[in-house]
Amino acid sequence: MKRYLSLFASAAMYAAFPVSAQEVKTHPAPSEIVASAKAGEWVAIAPTDLMVMDLAPDSKGRPRRVVIQLIPEPFSQGWVGNIRKLAAAKWWDGTSINRVQDNYVVQWGDATEKKALPEGLATVEKKNYITPNWPGKVWILTGADGRRDAYAAAHGFYVGWTLAASSEGLWPTHCYGMVGVGRNLSPDTGSGAELYTVIGHAPRHLDRNIALVGRVIEGIEHMSSLPRGTGALGFYEKEEERVPILSLRLGNETKEVHAFEYLSTDSDSFAAYADARANRRDPFFSVPAGGADICNIPVPVRRKIR
Amino acid sequence: MKRYLSLFASAAMYAAFPVSAQEVKTHPAPSEIVASAKAGEWVAIAPTDLMVMDLAPDSKGRPRRVVIQLIPEPFSQGWVGNIRKLAAAKWWDGTSINRVQDNYVVQWGDATEKKALPEGLATVEKKNYITPNWPGKVWILTGADGRRDAYAAAHGFYVGWTLAASSEGLWPTHCYGMVGVGRNLSPDTGSGAELYTVIGHAPRHLDRNIALVGRVIEGIEHMSSLPRGTGALGFYEKEEERVPILSLRLGNETKEVHAFEYLSTDSDSFAAYADARANRRDPFFSVPAGGADICNIPVPVRRKIR
Repeated sequence: MKRYLSLFASAAMYAAFPVSAQEVKTHPAPSEIVASAKAGEWVAIAPTDLMVMDLAPDSKGRPRRVVIQLIPEPFSQGWVGNIRKLAAAKWWDGTSINRVQDNYVVQWGDATEKKALPEGLATVEKKNYITPNWPGKVWILTGADGRRDAYAAAHGFYVGWTLAASSEGLWPTHCYGMVGVGRNLSPDTGSGAELYTVIGHAPRHLDRNIALVGRVIEGIEHMSSLPRGTGALGFYEKEEERVPILSLRLGNETKEVHAFEYLSTDSDSFAAYADARANRRDPFFSVPAGGADICNIPVPVRRKIR
Repeated sequence: MKRYLSLFASAAMYAAFPVSAQEVKTHPAPSEIVASAKAGEWVAIAPTDLMVMDLAPDSKGRPRRVVIQLIPEPFSQGWVGNIRKLAAAKWWDGTSINRVQDNYVVQWGDATEKKALPEGLATVEKKNYITPNWPGKVWILTGADGRRDAYAAAHGFYVGWTLAASSEGLWPTHCYGMVGVGRNLSPDTGSGAELYTVIGHAPRHLDRNIALVGRVIEGIEHMSSLPRGTGALGFYEKEEERVPILSLRLGNETKEVHAFEYLSTDSDSFAAYADARANRRDPFFSVPAGGADICNIPVPVRRKIR
């Protein structure tokens, strides 16, 4: 571990003493901490790291745009390179959302499974689900009283992303909104043409078993509110149930895409936000939890304020 | 602790050695373990503990029925008694779903906030969020390498329900599908007339801060797939967006309600199921997690097989 910060060390104290009405006034809610973060604590997301998916309009004719941020090196491995090639080839245009499984995933790609892939896609080995080398400063969280991640020895944040870690290395975590690569049985790891996003409780058992390549940063409600599929694993049984993908492009190849920024996970405001997520002391709460599941500390992302 | 079972003690062994194709054939998936559980391992849920909510049919005229199981003593406190009175008074008939917040909750009740409550409802104190006395045999889980719950000193199962525990006592956990009592600022704990269910990643920071009174056991997709509200906190902004509740009745006061049963959390099959949820060794998986978040071990519930 490069750095071990006991963020929740004082949690037990709060758990023992319900906070009085007078005290809570000095404790802002997580959303208030984010809203008051300094401009310099926000980091721009490069348009080349955005992927913009336009679904067919809904039944009332309203547009449905989903914006995805691609994961950086070293976690991107060969999959994100493949995804960039697929987007450049407009490969997803005319494909569809084919699976919506409640409390699990929404999945999209070529329902016929016959559409030819572009040439030159990489094949990535499953050992690459885990990155042995620490990429730089990773902020490690731990809880009070030995409270920890149920799925890993440690967890933390790196350039705006949530990671888990063991003595073997690091890996991104299957939290709500994360985007992964569908695959067949191992050792296949998937090309990147078949993608899914998490729309339920974090299926962390998929960590290190499936590649994660990004996260939805805007418009996930256009996927999470879709009718659930009635076939096995939530696949739609009828062709007309599928949701057409009109286009899927990289952010730098899309017109009229908004700019986005994330709250630096190295910033003071992020530290205060994470602490407040783990120890709610704003007026609604009587008992701060004294810890938080890593997937309950989502990294704040917003449209860039110009 | 009455019983401390190190269910995942052997997890580290599995984590170190990806399982070969030959070995995995001997390891069924969690769903296969549940499917092959013995008839005597299933426990009937009393119709008096069911609550049946019929929403207005969807845009295609299909019925939308949601079935809720009420939580037993000692966790039911006064809230479940209130809910029985409200259902008997048909209080929710003609009310509506008013709030759908993505990755959080669906909430229902009287949108006008003016409908008179039946007489004789109990007022419950917030100390009752935590039950100091252990009700009987509680099966406590722990993970490998000290992996544990991020929100509590321990967690486990009691007569089919998921609990967390500390030296202060026990409390039910805010997992997907759990039903809770909306309230205003503490020390108010809510009457039970305003209810919500979790439709996203478990908001465990609400544990011990809000009363949990049950869980959705069938039909949650009729709530989780609703359009998200565009107002603050996901409230619907227009009256026509609200989803009418045609009726809400106890199971023993409803015609044509199915009988349900849950897999005994004291059964051998449940122990095998929980172990398999924490250590997936079925063919799709290469790396068993070595642990599981309590909300990722949902207690199996099904329509009763006659």
